Amino acid sequence: MQIVKTIDEVRKTVKAWKKEGLTVGLVPTMGYLHEGHKSLIERAVKENDRVVVSDFVNPTQFGPNEDFESYPRDINADAKLCESAGASIIFNPEADEMYDNALTFVDMNKITKVLCGKTRPIHFSGVCTVVSKLFNIVQPDRAYFGQKDAQQLCVIKKMVKDLNFDIEIVGCPIIRENDGLAKSSRNTYLNADERKAALCLSRSLEIGKKMIADGETDVKTIILAIKAEIGKEPLAKIDYVEMVDFNQLETLEKVQKPLLCAMAVYIGKTRLIDNFIME
Amino acid sequence: MQIVKTIDEVRKTVKAWKKEGLTVGLVPTMGYLHEGHKSLIERAVKENDRVVVSDFVNPTQFGPNEDFESYPRDINADAKLCESAGASIIFNPEADEMYDNALTFVDMNKITKVLCGKTRPIHFSGVCTVVSKLFNIVQPDRAYFGQKDAQQLCVIKKMVKDLNFDIEIVGCPIIRENDGLAKSSRNTYLNADERKAALCLSRSLEIGKKMIADGETDVKTIILAIKAEIGKEPLAKIDYVEMVDFNQLETLEKVQKPLLCAMAVYIGKTRLIDNFIME
Repeated sequence: MQIVKTIDEVRKTVKAWKKEGLTVGLVPTMGYLHEGHKSLIERAVKENDRVVVSDFVNPTQFGPNEDFESYPRDINADAKLCESAGASIIFNPEADEMYDNALTFVDMNKITKVLCGKTRPIHFSGVCTVVSKLFNIVQPDRAYFGQKDAQQLCVIKKMVKDLNFDIEIVGCPIIRENDGLAKSSRNTYLNADERKAALCLSRSLEIGKKMIADGETDVKTIILAIKAEIGKEPLAKIDYVEMVDFNQLETLEKVQKPLLCAMAVYIGKTRLIDNFIME
Repeated sequence: MQIVKTIDEVRKTVKAWKKEGLTVGLVPTMGYLHEGHKSLIERAVKENDRVVVSDFVNPTQFGPNEDFESYPRDINADAKLCESAGASIIFNPEADEMYDNALTFVDMNKITKVLCGKTRPIHFSGVCTVVSKLFNIVQPDRAYFGQKDAQQLCVIKKMVKDLNFDIEIVGCPIIRENDGLAKSSRNTYLNADERKAALCLSRSLEIGKKMIADGETDVKTIILAIKAEIGKEPLAKIDYVEMVDFNQLETLEKVQKPLLCAMAVYIGKTRLIDNFIME
């Protein structure tokens, strides 16, 4: 399996595949791949003849005080994981290859301004722009995104519809550690105490899920219970906990499906996200 | 030649062509086609196996006080012109087909803020968004734009580069009436007196061109002479006259190629644009 650094080379490779009539799946990632990414790649391998994994820590989706510099990178480990999962190539460009004095951006109103968009105002513009570029470079039949970034999945689906990309977007379930922590490249930032504290995210979401299963319909009551559970953890600081409808991302007052219950919580200095979706 | 109203139908048609290995040219227009558009279509017909002409008065590129409502439309005349020029289909969607509660937009910094962008702040975002959509719907090999909208051509080329559209952008020369007036769908707004007055655009540009040919290198001197010529015409009111480099659209002090000398001038209530390019 080849590591490709240039846009031209990806294009040539994909065009040769398409000439043979092969289908192409794309798994866009920022690298430092874990079981969550692996599940996306395996699904893509199952559903397409060839799979491109992009591996690019995209600078334009990080705010000035965020962790772009420290974001973990390990292209050799990534290549091994991609190979074992059956990917065809990794596209691992330098930032200059992707942004050569670029002035153009893709952005979205409304659904990029809520949840993570409140505290990360440029994030989704960066995501939409880089994903548009990857779509145009690879021209895949299908692209795979994890539901852990539920808002991102929602935004990408909306972008594809609005800009008429001829690409099927496939959302894939959250992969968790045995103790419930959602897999994330950022988990590597956590020390032993923080790693334990981080369980408050999945634990509190389970409480919310159970309340809905038990018939609670008042969103405020559920959110309060979730926040109370997180509040017990001294290392945790809530960014947001919200319950929204999973299409428009508008706040719900009563439980109503499809719903997304999403949270961002700082564990020490590490900002973690987690969620559950009920369709 | 068929008039197609839906995105799905255009897609199906183009996919069938591509399966046969045919190349596809796209000519994006707002309809009310004239000899300028015809020259684009004929060039596209020469260079591609099939040609799609899009015919859509795009609401998102008009400001609130601009002429969206009054912009001239005549799909039957357009169909005749397209047929005679050798186009394969016209794509003539309703606004709802193109913008169904859309939230996504494509925009650009810097080069969309100068020239026409100064007085039309949302114009180029509307253009970039609709052209991105058309590119994704038609997926052409080449797309054709007139140099009369020189800034638009520059913006589209930059967008294609920045977002990695796999499409060749072809710029085509301005087509003029016998007396020099650049062909434009908006010329239909002019009454007899205004039609005569509108010649001050092309006439003043010729003066600027001749000064450069005669060795004048000071941009301010040339712009002053152009403005003086327009100033002689009582029905004319200058929006802008500028000389910029034809890549970055940055103001020039000394004549230096490639250059764009562009103007927007109101003749009565009608805003006309014209330019010359020296490469």
